Amino acid sequence: MRRFLRHPVRLVPFGFLVPILLGTGLLMMRPATIEHQRAPFVTALFTATSAVSVTGMAATDTPNYWSGWGLVLITLLTQLGGLGILTAAALVILLVSRQLGLRNRLLVQAETQEFGIGDVGRLLRRIAVTVFACEAAMTVVVSARLWLTYDYSLGHALWAGVFHSVQAFNNGGFALYTDGLLAFARDPWVSLPLALGAIIGGLGFPALFEAVREWREPVRWAVATKLTIWGSVVLIVFGFLWLLMTEWTNPRTIGQYDMPGKALASFTQIALSRTGGFEVLDISALREESYPLLVALMFIGGGSASTAGGIKVSTFFLLAFVIWAELRGEPDVSVGHRRVANASQRQALTVALLSVALVALGTFAVILLTENIVFSQALFEVTSAFSTTGLTVGLVQRLPEGGQLLLTALMFIGRVGPLTLGSAIALNTRRRLYRHPEEQPIVG
Amino acid sequence: MRRFLRHPVRLVPFGFLVPILLGTGLLMMRPATIEHQRAPFVTALFTATSAVSVTGMAATDTPNYWSGWGLVLITLLTQLGGLGILTAAALVILLVSRQLGLRNRLLVQAETQEFGIGDVGRLLRRIAVTVFACEAAMTVVVSARLWLTYDYSLGHALWAGVFHSVQAFNNGGFALYTDGLLAFARDPWVSLPLALGAIIGGLGFPALFEAVREWREPVRWAVATKLTIWGSVVLIVFGFLWLLMTEWTNPRTIGQYDMPGKALASFTQIALSRTGGFEVLDISALREESYPLLVALMFIGGGSASTAGGIKVSTFFLLAFVIWAELRGEPDVSVGHRRVANASQRQALTVALLSVALVALGTFAVILLTENIVFSQALFEVTSAFSTTGLTVGLVQRLPEGGQLLLTALMFIGRVGPLTLGSAIALNTRRRLYRHPEEQPIVG
Ligand SMILES: [K+]
Ligand SMILES: [K+]
Repeated sequence: MRRFLRHPVRLVPFGFLVPILLGTGLLMMRPATIEHQRAPFVTALFTATSAVSVTGMAATDTPNYWSGWGLVLITLLTQLGGLGILTAAALVILLVSRQLGLRNRLLVQAETQEFGIGDVGRLLRRIAVTVFACEAAMTVVVSARLWLTYDYSLGHALWAGVFHSVQAFNNGGFALYTDGLLAFARDPWVSLPLALGAIIGGLGFPALFEAVREWREPVRWAVATKLTIWGSVVLIVFGFLWLLMTEWTNPRTIGQYDMPGKALASFTQIALSRTGGFEVLDISALREESYPLLVALMFIGGGSASTAGGIKVSTFFLLAFVIWAELRGEPDVSVGHRRVANASQRQALTVALLSVALVALGTFAVILLTENIVFSQALFEVTSAFSTTGLTVGLVQRLPEGGQLLLTALMFIGRVGPLTLGSAIALNTRRRLYRHPEEQPIVG
Repeated sequence: MRRFLRHPVRLVPFGFLVPILLGTGLLMMRPATIEHQRAPFVTALFTATSAVSVTGMAATDTPNYWSGWGLVLITLLTQLGGLGILTAAALVILLVSRQLGLRNRLLVQAETQEFGIGDVGRLLRRIAVTVFACEAAMTVVVSARLWLTYDYSLGHALWAGVFHSVQAFNNGGFALYTDGLLAFARDPWVSLPLALGAIIGGLGFPALFEAVREWREPVRWAVATKLTIWGSVVLIVFGFLWLLMTEWTNPRTIGQYDMPGKALASFTQIALSRTGGFEVLDISALREESYPLLVALMFIGGGSASTAGGIKVSTFFLLAFVIWAELRGEPDVSVGHRRVANASQRQALTVALLSVALVALGTFAVILLTENIVFSQALFEVTSAFSTTGLTVGLVQRLPEGGQLLLTALMFIGRVGPLTLGSAIALNTRRRLYRHPEEQPIVG
């Protein structure tokens, strides 16, 4: 066992498993529910996994099932999960930059010049400060609004502000209301801070720090930063326009709103659909044409080394560049005057194909496990769990225990990452000392 | 235009377009239908594309719509399409082997030693002889059986034997019966020759010739041959067991058959589902669990440089090896003691992802274009068209004209190949004389 765990990649799944099991135990204690009854094991496991993996999918009617103490637990588990992810990501960045040779280190200096090798403590401190500063800023705006306009008591407004700000910035997705944030769809003082927090939290610190530091010279950004920032802009604009168009006249979503209301609700829902997981519109009332958009956005997810899930924006757009280079007949894949290493291409390919396979298998399994189920609902719920988004068309609460356990597994796999999890299992720790002769087989 | 067409890859789409348009014109003439009325343009275009692309999907009730002359036209178009594909594939093989340097040529000698550089004529002759010999052998068995056991006249038996043998070997999929080959599901003398012909025709000549020549020493096969042959075995065995298990008690398919009947019908349907397109079972009566299997098999398709469609067996298994190498942390991707070139990996990735995207977009478009449609039916029909398989759950005849045109386009794209078609449009004919510095972005 100790030998097995010697490789760092094998520690990652355990790093998530321990708080999940701890949280499950705590959530199964009587004080955690409103009725002071023991939550069933599957419900507690689902909820703890959903919180630690910052998915926010709810197997229960959150505000009417969990007690105040239960909700505090969920908040702590979400914050723990979010910080854990960011810490692990920071360590990976430092490990990678240490393993690279000097030549490569110079090339990736955009990432490493700021957090010098070995400066783990400083980096982690900086991440923690940024997280809590953003959450505090969001809390101030949201709580003030709830206190001043919605007749909340100061204490209640603060609690609701902290709860939703932590959830939004960590892309958690649990809400204190049965219908998510529907009540605030047209209130920019509540929905905009949460939407912006989710976007910033979903960029990931490597991209975020570099973009902030080098905002005057975007051409100098690293390839990963360029892909993440510009890719996110493209996805948000595209998604916003698509959702606005398809839902424009839908009376069950934004059809009754005035123009600014339509725009605000569409933008907020798109910002929160990429991995945030709050519902600003009634997801089950959307038009048929909106589902493929949301499934695609959830599947792509947010930035690398962030609390976002999915295959990641950089993976998606890197693959687009690979395909374009192949169609053009170019020998190299270039993004913004930088050649992309073959290793990165292979990694992107593996992540994307494993994810497609997992979502397909998961959808199939959910259909087999559940009666009277529509394919598109199963696909939506499975993609939402796997990408740790947490949006739901309402299927999750109808699922039998087997189906909920399956979604639990998907949240866990999606959080750890299929590549990391697969590597942890399959990794070859012996080095091969020879190379086979090369061959170029015909494919396609 | 001449300048545009100078690159050979740009000729391929035109090579399919010309016979399709010709066939459309001929099928629109009065003698082609039983009622001697002009077939509508969309129907004729769909049928001609379906024949030339060796899909065999039927927008009409084939035996009750097209006259004898129409059926002869369909046979000729299928044979023309099949031979055209094999010729183009042979030329590509020779072009590739000519463009490779001496070092690489020695490495791929397994492919090239037999058809020496420049020996196009000999190769094509050999292909043609193999095709007609196989078709003749199939015809003899099938026609004899129909004549001796089914009370067909000799002429009728010969015609039915030739028609279905040509269709099966070229993976065409048109049948002379409204319900496909359901009547012969338990007759090994009819269904086995057609199934084996479809398998052999779907391997592709590069793999087939090498496997036959080097059958004593499979370890010496080229990577592409190993992937294609062993991959096909794996897919057929896996598919056979899956279908047998899920349909075992289904009274509407094999439930009423005895054990050998169940086995024969399952095997035949699997052999013909990978790209053949004949129906031995009632596809619309299959159990829910059988559809993902058939969709996956159709999507993967058959061998490269064959009449099969799909992303190809070698592409699928090569990607599996790439993923496995990535999970193991191996720097090289090795298949049977040969390192796979990065160029092949990138090509496989592009084919797979473009195909996934096209099937997803096509399914979405069909759903938008059609009322009262179930997602899984749309996915099945679109995958079947794109992979030029031609199996149908009965949706195609219900589709509006727009939907049929969409399937026509998918058959065409699937036949030409998304990579070839994309390259023909996007190819960069100027060479870049410099390389950008390399960077290894974080993805996933
Ligand atoms: K989430
Ligand atoms: K076919």
